[in-house]
Amino acid sequence: MEKEASKLMTKMEMIHYIIENFDFFENKENLICEEIGDGNINYVFRVKDINSKKSLVVKQADVLLRSSGRPLDIYRSKIEAEVLKLENVLSPGSVPEVFHYDEEKSLIIMEDISDYKNLRTELLNGKTYNHLSDSLADFLGKTLIPMTDLVISREEKKKNAKKFTNPELCDITEDLVLTEPYYNYKNRNIISEGLEDYVNESLYENDGLHLEVLKLKDKYQNYSQTLIHGDLHLGSIFVNENGIKVIDPEFGFYGPMAYDIGNVWGNLFFPLAHHLVVKGDENYVSSLKNLITETIDKTIKMLEISFDENVKNKFLMNQEFKEYYLKEIISDSFGYSGTEIIRRVVGDSKVIEVSSVEDSKQRKNLDKLLIDMGIKLILNRELLNQGQDVIEVFESLA
Amino acid sequence: MEKEASKLMTKMEMIHYIIENFDFFENKENLICEEIGDGNINYVFRVKDINSKKSLVVKQADVLLRSSGRPLDIYRSKIEAEVLKLENVLSPGSVPEVFHYDEEKSLIIMEDISDYKNLRTELLNGKTYNHLSDSLADFLGKTLIPMTDLVISREEKKKNAKKFTNPELCDITEDLVLTEPYYNYKNRNIISEGLEDYVNESLYENDGLHLEVLKLKDKYQNYSQTLIHGDLHLGSIFVNENGIKVIDPEFGFYGPMAYDIGNVWGNLFFPLAHHLVVKGDENYVSSLKNLITETIDKTIKMLEISFDENVKNKFLMNQEFKEYYLKEIISDSFGYSGTEIIRRVVGDSKVIEVSSVEDSKQRKNLDKLLIDMGIKLILNRELLNQGQDVIEVFESLA
Repeated sequence: MEKEASKLMTKMEMIHYIIENFDFFENKENLICEEIGDGNINYVFRVKDINSKKSLVVKQADVLLRSSGRPLDIYRSKIEAEVLKLENVLSPGSVPEVFHYDEEKSLIIMEDISDYKNLRTELLNGKTYNHLSDSLADFLGKTLIPMTDLVISREEKKKNAKKFTNPELCDITEDLVLTEPYYNYKNRNIISEGLEDYVNESLYENDGLHLEVLKLKDKYQNYSQTLIHGDLHLGSIFVNENGIKVIDPEFGFYGPMAYDIGNVWGNLFFPLAHHLVVKGDENYVSSLKNLITETIDKTIKMLEISFDENVKNKFLMNQEFKEYYLKEIISDSFGYSGTEIIRRVVGDSKVIEVSSVEDSKQRKNLDKLLIDMGIKLILNRELLNQGQDVIEVFESLA
Repeated sequence: MEKEASKLMTKMEMIHYIIENFDFFENKENLICEEIGDGNINYVFRVKDINSKKSLVVKQADVLLRSSGRPLDIYRSKIEAEVLKLENVLSPGSVPEVFHYDEEKSLIIMEDISDYKNLRTELLNGKTYNHLSDSLADFLGKTLIPMTDLVISREEKKKNAKKFTNPELCDITEDLVLTEPYYNYKNRNIISEGLEDYVNESLYENDGLHLEVLKLKDKYQNYSQTLIHGDLHLGSIFVNENGIKVIDPEFGFYGPMAYDIGNVWGNLFFPLAHHLVVKGDENYVSSLKNLITETIDKTIKMLEISFDENVKNKFLMNQEFKEYYLKEIISDSFGYSGTEIIRRVVGDSKVIEVSSVEDSKQRKNLDKLLIDMGIKLILNRELLNQGQDVIEVFESLA
């Protein structure tokens, strides 16, 4: 990557920039700018008219990571803006609307979604949203199949794949998700005390598991099936009574759609395992099991509906091919659920459902349950067909 | 594609260009330029010093196809030059050396390989080359595995895949090879008289075959495994007693290596079927069967050697993964052998071994034998493991 100068703006510069370039606020005298980002990568601000309460969000990417100062390809900002725009066409309202993108400044000006709450926090806190399985399935069904070359032209797909080439961010996933939990070559894993031998045996020295992870890794790296979000964990999904808003697609690229699906499915096991092991709330555990079953089953249904609605080429409208194609996606989705679960337990990007557990015995039980679940999902992915199958696996381990 | 003006040069301009830009010829007074290309796409000239006999070849691509005047992405010329340069590093001497590439003029100046003869013509004429199976296996083994992200860095691979994005030429293959022989939607197929019903039943209305072709098509379109030649039929391979020279990689892109391998293997069935059905020369038929068996077996061996020599990442050096990875390549190679055989019989780009047969009964037998062989290769590709397996299939049909 070439070295580029930082173009970060101050809050005052943000306000001036918006006043000068953008016709969103009627009254320009009462604007305030507050930083709302708590991420470790980018800078996020809310600009608000204190009288009218109208607001928008400004996200600026820098050439250096906010947390570590390490350089990271600034092109991720353009990818994020473009993916958001495309997803808002494919699944209107499911992502923040992008009002304006300034490529030169790597600045996205978009809808303020502060009416929505972080889904990870909500589920950790025992909240329930009746629409959730429908909303998640709907987003996956509407955004994934339509960007494949079963639907758009082969030429357009190839141009998309070229435009969304995202080597530096993919590299992070290829290491943190699909390599290091099994081959700790950068020595970045953090294993709970007392689980070292277990991790050694079940993850580091498990050749049969490595084989299956390597197949999933090869597909992530080489199968340019469709435009995916690339980082669809629960912290990238915001929710309220009306629906969801999916944010932060800066890891977007042309890859296997199962990676997005698997991330959503897999992440739902963190609140489930947490509430089971730590809080012991039977009712909420049962409601999360339902959420998982329904999310999986509705996603599968939505994928088929999306295939039927969008694939109109007669040669491709082959019943057996459709079944083969969807079955591959479903199996791989279970596989990527497994790799996501495992990396969030043993890798250095842990989820709060895991890292917040202070009791060391509970933590050990939680970690082991999740690792076991991840392994089963990876190894048995071709035998799993529906939500209930997965819950049965979980119950056999819990 | 944007419209571009033609930059085609006359023979005199070629000579002047070479004198002015290039220090190849010592004596510049005795140069002659003759057109040697008989292709329907590009313009190829030989520039020669009539005293010293030194010579080189100049290949110029135009924005319009030579034959039809249809536009075709001129970027193919850059791809051809870059692939030739890379292949000459990976497998030195197996392609014409590129002396100079002029991107602005889409002009490749390269080694003159007139000491070598077209392999398709040579095999049709009953010629034998003892090194041939070794040379073909060697080229495939040395050029394919080393450009995967098992060997080069993931970042370099993704940058390569982006650079070698080749939508217009891939589109030709996707239609002519992987669609139209089964779904004649452009009405370009040319079926021998008397075979219409057979083609209808066995190719156009064969859902089980369509399923398998659609899997191979999906992989061709989406699996960006390695840099492939993309058009490795016998007419792209030149041969003499010393070895082979592989030319014309303008269809190059990041795709499944099985496509290249399958093209080489599949094309060898044209001389075999031709000599069996038309000429009835038992000795040469037997020698071609040996050639096929040995080419397949040596290719498989070379792929494994190449994997062992080049894949040095410890996580990837997993014996079961290697076996899985190579088995997939071998199965798919048989599949793409089948699609290549079929498209050259029913499509409009027929091979001379087929189109030269004037006796209508012989032609019908030849066509049917090849179509049957192609279907078996596609449907049974996962059951085939070595050259002898394929010859047995052929003998059961012939």
